[in-house]
Amino acid sequence: MLRCGIVGATGYTGIELIKILGRHTYAQLSALTSRQPKPFPVRQLVPEAPEDPDVVVRPFNFSEVRDAVDAVFLCLPHTEAARTAAKFYRAGKIVIDLSADFRLKSARLYEAWYGVRHAAKNILGRAVYGLPEMNREAIRSADLIANPGCYPTGAVIGLYPLLKRRLIDPDSIVIDAKSGVTGAGKRLSPHTQFCAVDENFYAYKVNRHQHMPEIEQALGKAAGRRIAVTFVPHLLPMKRGIMTALYLKVRKGAGAPQIARAFGECYGEEPFVRFRGEGQFPALADVQGTNFCDVGFSLEKRNGRLIVITAIDNLLKGASGQAVQNMNIRAGFPEHEGLKVW
Amino acid sequence: MLRCGIVGATGYTGIELIKILGRHTYAQLSALTSRQPKPFPVRQLVPEAPEDPDVVVRPFNFSEVRDAVDAVFLCLPHTEAARTAAKFYRAGKIVIDLSADFRLKSARLYEAWYGVRHAAKNILGRAVYGLPEMNREAIRSADLIANPGCYPTGAVIGLYPLLKRRLIDPDSIVIDAKSGVTGAGKRLSPHTQFCAVDENFYAYKVNRHQHMPEIEQALGKAAGRRIAVTFVPHLLPMKRGIMTALYLKVRKGAGAPQIARAFGECYGEEPFVRFRGEGQFPALADVQGTNFCDVGFSLEKRNGRLIVITAIDNLLKGASGQAVQNMNIRAGFPEHEGLKVW
Amino acid sequence: MLRCGIVGATGYTGIELIKILGRHTYAQLSALTSRQPKPFPVRQLVPEAPEDPDVVVRPFNFSEVRDAVDAVFLCLPHTEAARTAAKFYRAGKIVIDLSADFRLKSARLYEAWYGVRHAAKNILGRAVYGLPEMNREAIRSADLIANPGCYPTGAVIGLYPLLKRRLIDPDSIVIDAKSGVTGAGKRLSPHTQFCAVDENFYAYKVNRHQHMPEIEQALGKAAGRRIAVTFVPHLLPMKRGIMTALYLKVRKGAGAPQIARAFGECYGEEPFVRFRGEGQFPALADVQGTNFCDVGFSLEKRNGRLIVITAIDNLLKGASGQAVQNMNIRAGFPEHEGLKVW
Amino acid sequence: MLRCGIVGATGYTGIELIKILGRHTYAQLSALTSRQPKPFPVRQLVPEAPEDPDVVVRPFNFSEVRDAVDAVFLCLPHTEAARTAAKFYRAGKIVIDLSADFRLKSARLYEAWYGVRHAAKNILGRAVYGLPEMNREAIRSADLIANPGCYPTGAVIGLYPLLKRRLIDPDSIVIDAKSGVTGAGKRLSPHTQFCAVDENFYAYKVNRHQHMPEIEQALGKAAGRRIAVTFVPHLLPMKRGIMTALYLKVRKGAGAPQIARAFGECYGEEPFVRFRGEGQFPALADVQGTNFCDVGFSLEKRNGRLIVITAIDNLLKGASGQAVQNMNIRAGFPEHEGLKVW
Repeated sequence: MLRCGIVGATGYTGIELIKILGRHTYAQLSALTSRQPKPFPVRQLVPEAPEDPDVVVRPFNFSEVRDAVDAVFLCLPHTEAARTAAKFYRAGKIVIDLSADFRLKSARLYEAWYGVRHAAKNILGRAVYGLPEMNREAIRSADLIANPGCYPTGAVIGLYPLLKRRLIDPDSIVIDAKSGVTGAGKRLSPHTQFCAVDENFYAYKVNRHQHMPEIEQALGKAAGRRIAVTFVPHLLPMKRGIMTALYLKVRKGAGAPQIARAFGECYGEEPFVRFRGEGQFPALADVQGTNFCDVGFSLEKRNGRLIVITAIDNLLKGASGQAVQNMNIRAGFPEHEGLKVW
Repeated sequence: MLRCGIVGATGYTGIELIKILGRHTYAQLSALTSRQPKPFPVRQLVPEAPEDPDVVVRPFNFSEVRDAVDAVFLCLPHTEAARTAAKFYRAGKIVIDLSADFRLKSARLYEAWYGVRHAAKNILGRAVYGLPEMNREAIRSADLIANPGCYPTGAVIGLYPLLKRRLIDPDSIVIDAKSGVTGAGKRLSPHTQFCAVDENFYAYKVNRHQHMPEIEQALGKAAGRRIAVTFVPHLLPMKRGIMTALYLKVRKGAGAPQIARAFGECYGEEPFVRFRGEGQFPALADVQGTNFCDVGFSLEKRNGRLIVITAIDNLLKGASGQAVQNMNIRAGFPEHEGLKVW
Repeated sequence: MLRCGIVGATGYTGIELIKILGRHTYAQLSALTSRQPKPFPVRQLVPEAPEDPDVVVRPFNFSEVRDAVDAVFLCLPHTEAARTAAKFYRAGKIVIDLSADFRLKSARLYEAWYGVRHAAKNILGRAVYGLPEMNREAIRSADLIANPGCYPTGAVIGLYPLLKRRLIDPDSIVIDAKSGVTGAGKRLSPHTQFCAVDENFYAYKVNRHQHMPEIEQALGKAAGRRIAVTFVPHLLPMKRGIMTALYLKVRKGAGAPQIARAFGECYGEEPFVRFRGEGQFPALADVQGTNFCDVGFSLEKRNGRLIVITAIDNLLKGASGQAVQNMNIRAGFPEHEGLKVW
Repeated sequence: MLRCGIVGATGYTGIELIKILGRHTYAQLSALTSRQPKPFPVRQLVPEAPEDPDVVVRPFNFSEVRDAVDAVFLCLPHTEAARTAAKFYRAGKIVIDLSADFRLKSARLYEAWYGVRHAAKNILGRAVYGLPEMNREAIRSADLIANPGCYPTGAVIGLYPLLKRRLIDPDSIVIDAKSGVTGAGKRLSPHTQFCAVDENFYAYKVNRHQHMPEIEQALGKAAGRRIAVTFVPHLLPMKRGIMTALYLKVRKGAGAPQIARAFGECYGEEPFVRFRGEGQFPALADVQGTNFCDVGFSLEKRNGRLIVITAIDNLLKGASGQAVQNMNIRAGFPEHEGLKVW
């Protein structure tokens, strides 16, 4: 059994991790922490949890958690995540960080977009970007895994095969993404109040969202060159899911068969990508509650414009599900352990 | 008083017309019809309607309606709309058709996209496309007004000034639109059941939506050349509103000031377009229940990509509100009569 | 023109008041205040407001507002409302208070339920409870109007005729009420976050809601004796509306005709109560956006149990609409002025 | 392995059964049927189903299903269910019927409420009412299990201990229930369209709902006398869950400790009832996606009125979850097999 800890267990991603690890065959919840000053049973977060006196959420105490776990999931605000990760990393633990702190390779870029100094520059170079579809081999031996952002997961899975196979013009990338409200986290905000969201829809942080450099870094790696995208996120009046529409120019000679082949070859063996083929587009209902990323595309012959659409559950493939997928890869467990819904 | 009739009063657009004309100073509801075999009071459709025994919804009888009205709004399925329009047009009435039957200038194009023969080809040439922001002068004397589709209204208002001023590359146009469920009409369908829509989101009719040739026709007129767009509509889990994101390449020399000036000059006098300026994007909540189209834009310097976002209420500016705006223009009434919410 | 002020213009009830008074023929918005440190145009609250430089929301300054208004609407937290009301009342203004501060006749009861000292006991005796269906004559000359709570409005309108006519057992009253989320106000709370409300439903403050003594006071006045009700409010996953189911035992000899007659006679002339008769129950959609209270009932012969159901829009008949109705009564304007939707 | 069939696999309850049985350790999906004329893979209903060529939904053929299964779940309209049940029962199969056909012991009562003749009167006497909390022993040997209705499940679990222990006045029972939209099934109806449900709420079939005699039969059995309840169902603007508020008069001497003890003793060993104690009321979010029924209560000392509130997921404890719970009891499997979410 891999002894697992969750630091920051009360947020949306923490609760999803509790549920996944609670039914995991080879993992065991051995430390759960929160900012609450007093311990409380995990049942307050997940009513269907067993009445196990061991499963208690406690105030964070580094040495207690360190002694109790082999692997730790960090569901913390940025900078706090970096500081905490450094400690667990130095203590020899497997660290899976769900914050943004280790996603960008460049501390300078991080500081420009997040507006704060990086709190653990010295280990930034050790972090592996935890997108299994791009980085599985590196994840197998990583002790510091930077779990991808939700928007980057949806966008990069849709673009990676096309850039790798040089099927699209890397200067043409437009990303129109729509996210459910859990993406904004649990922190109180006027923007996530029911009456502000219900029956409403709007774009926000147009070309200024902090996930943009993360997307560009991943795409740049796939393309072997710098990439500047257009990125417009929107807030949907619903809880879970990210739908990403990608608008692209194909390169000369790249037709629908080439595109379908690129997706098929890259993702044919992937346990959590379902490529649906040409003209088959996913709905968010298809992926909610699962770790799948569904992908469809359409190529317009009149103007050579390619549309790729991906769908994920932002809390699973876009956060906690992918985190456990990464843990499974790192620990040598079956990749879908804890993540199968059937 | 202009005596007005609504043929097809029980659908979403019919009910909105009843509400608008009910509070209109110069219009009078003098005929309301539906497919119900028996007459029924308008209160069944609009609970706040007065207990006026004259305001009754009756089965359609052409000569009765003809004798009762000066202007008629048709809220009918296509082809049935064309046949009915032809009769009222020949009887000398002002006809405002909310169906798609008179929007496309080419009967051949209509037949290709709608899959049926056009039922009134001989008067198709008389129809004026009822988008006041493009066609106000022609509307003033039109007896057959083709009220625009909801998606075309949101897209064309965002693109018209840019194409007219030659600020964008006409081959670069991507339209990512998101509509509330009223856009699908009241006909029973598994796709509009609560449990199919709630907490769900998806693209549909990707590059195959019947509003696409209408958009291309209007844009082609503005640009003075043929235009082929990419058009992806989505269904939002909410009732009302269309948000349209437009992704465009600007032409050399077209900067933010030129773009702002184009919008400002085209729409500065428009009673129902609110141009918000650079970096100011609308939410659907801003326009619901109003006849406004709100417009914002952002120009990305890194890659010359322009984002324009428009928001309308699909049942008002996208249908019944615009229909009354057209009636007001045609009849010489103040353009905002019946449409002011303040 | 009656010069009107709104103190606390940025909450849900303040914004509704702005919209109603903005289209009122005989009222004029002459002072709007908020806690924001800087003035801002009313358009930020109500996008369809005219660009009138006079209509600005300013920080509260008593003497400025006093000089500008004839009547003032207070949309303030309790105790702050009482203190502010006292000043305007002493300055000779018509005060319409939307808080709970002047609803309970007994300062002791107020202090027991609200947990604070009453801040203006000396004028509590001057307050008139602003439920026109019970108190119209007193409202005509009132200078301090305590606008009823939303739950009490829905419950009391359904019970008043039955108690007055002695048709029901006053010890049998069960009130099962369901409210939209705007009822909770705009203050940030984990309970009104989208993800806490959407797809959820629950009872809260069971028999402990602060509107309970207000309901009992109004019913006691109608019945001429003390009344103890059962009151269970619930939160609906939607924005607006309160549905109230009343479960009652009828007295001997009270049949459906007597009940129908009681409602008909009490409310036949009421501009904002629509009695629908036996077996006809309202939906919240029927009253949203209106100042109506719809009422239906059903009498079960098997067990003499009576069910009365009422529906209101909690922000209109349950708050701001009723406040303007009270103002219209007090000022001698037509009672539906500003409140007609047709 | 118990070989299981689902007749009527495409409705909401059929799909839930597929999901539960798909993860069941001792059950195997060996026949799935629908009205579709052609076979189709189960993945069309449940995207996360494995690509197993055996798991196909086929047109119904009695002898094929009979040969393939040991137990059969019927998710059919009433009367069709009775006819089909009779065949499988005679063929010696375990029949679990999710329709209303075998719930009422009296064919006359059935015919009065459902308005059709009973299609299998001769086996009606063999049916066992499948509410484990009341009938576990009888279920262990039943070959025809009438799975309870969703409303009756929520109401009866809240009332059974109180009636059995004679703690309440059986003539005082008021049931105010609120259901999500899946309760109405998948059949197209104007009442379940998104725009009819969203932002709306209303009571329906007041004292005329067909679940009323089923509730009265179960309560009558618990009380040992005839019982006439008041029953008001409402439709919530959400997908899943039934919240039931029960308003009751307690008998002399029945205080909160007696009530808590009755619930504790009746349900202390129940795997799927969570009694939360006095003043602790459930939210629908607590039970969605689970087979639990949560129960809380409050006793008002002022007037001896008792409030009990129960919450279930209408598709699980209110339908398919309870059906599998019944199958587990009948087959001797652990009762929570397939139904554990942790």
